[in-house]
Amino acid sequence: MSATTIKLLKTPTQAAWVEQALANLDTVLLDHSHCERKAAGVAVNLMFRYPSNAPLVRQLTAIAQEELAHFEQVNQWLDRRGIPLAPLKAAPYGARLSGQIRRHEPERLLDSLLVAALIEARSHERLGLLGDHCPEPELAAFFRSLRASEARHYGIYWLLADRECDRLALWHRLDELAAVEADILDTLHPEPRVHS
Amino acid sequence: MSATTIKLLKTPTQAAWVEQALANLDTVLLDHSHCERKAAGVAVNLMFRYPSNAPLVRQLTAIAQEELAHFEQVNQWLDRRGIPLAPLKAAPYGARLSGQIRRHEPERLLDSLLVAALIEARSHERLGLLGDHCPEPELAAFFRSLRASEARHYGIYWLLADRECDRLALWHRLDELAAVEADILDTLHPEPRVHS
Repeated sequence: MSATTIKLLKTPTQAAWVEQALANLDTVLLDHSHCERKAAGVAVNLMFRYPSNAPLVRQLTAIAQEELAHFEQVNQWLDRRGIPLAPLKAAPYGARLSGQIRRHEPERLLDSLLVAALIEARSHERLGLLGDHCPEPELAAFFRSLRASEARHYGIYWLLADRECDRLALWHRLDELAAVEADILDTLHPEPRVHS
Repeated sequence: MSATTIKLLKTPTQAAWVEQALANLDTVLLDHSHCERKAAGVAVNLMFRYPSNAPLVRQLTAIAQEELAHFEQVNQWLDRRGIPLAPLKAAPYGARLSGQIRRHEPERLLDSLLVAALIEARSHERLGLLGDHCPEPELAAFFRSLRASEARHYGIYWLLADRECDRLALWHRLDELAAVEADILDTLHPEPRVHS
């Protein structure tokens, strides 16, 4: 199964999010910087939790490197727009979704990979929306370039999850987590964020 | 002050470590893989602890990327030699040195940077010894290539520390931490490690 044929998300992003994001591009860009740092942190943390799982470690190393490169690129955009690297209260999305990760192995690894896949899939979808609708051509092109990587990342997380359990259990758990993911985003978070 | 003129270490590595390492190259190589992962983790953790310190974040991003690239390279060497990515009990070095980091800011940041600088400086020295004495020419060349990066990293950590307090306080604290570092290595750890 190639990454491009995987449809992980239950519901498409609502138009209200696109309006909110376009009206607050600077904040969304700053939030996306934090997202890239956190995405690198997720990959590095998994490398520390499963240091002897060579295929996992190899893929996570590549993802972490790419997230760090994007983090640096987003920060250059912030610099160019005069936006300081300020703290920003996160949307509840990440914490609520990560709260679904079961505590015991092997479920913990499976859930961690599926949650990461869902977050990357949603980022992919939303960066695509920004790439399509952002009125600044150069910034729009940047969003589109990031979108392509997020697609690769969710494909990798999905394939890593696929190694951890049988296909039926995998789809069942994905179905549960994707429902939670859609439910979280059903109410637009009042503060403009990538995952509001 | 350029990185190459900084002498951070109080004592040179003893000949017994070189003998121990050369007699256990596979174990030292595996330990070095763990060291590269941990070094990336240190940089990423500092990025999370000081997310709004833009100059710090920029340098740490570059260091983390480079440590991950080296981690991947060391793992390729492990692969080539048929060494599985197994867990390995760490030498007490890292934990004892990190135990010196004071808990409150701004001392916490200063100490974190100086401890990272000392660890990189010692890695630089020891990878140089392996590069000079390793009987396998290709592996020796690899150690020498890593040595050069460790030198750059300890220079960067040192310069970042230099931004955090006045020069006299900096040298005073470095003197204290370097004495602890030398003291830890005064007794050769019985298990072969990069920092035994």
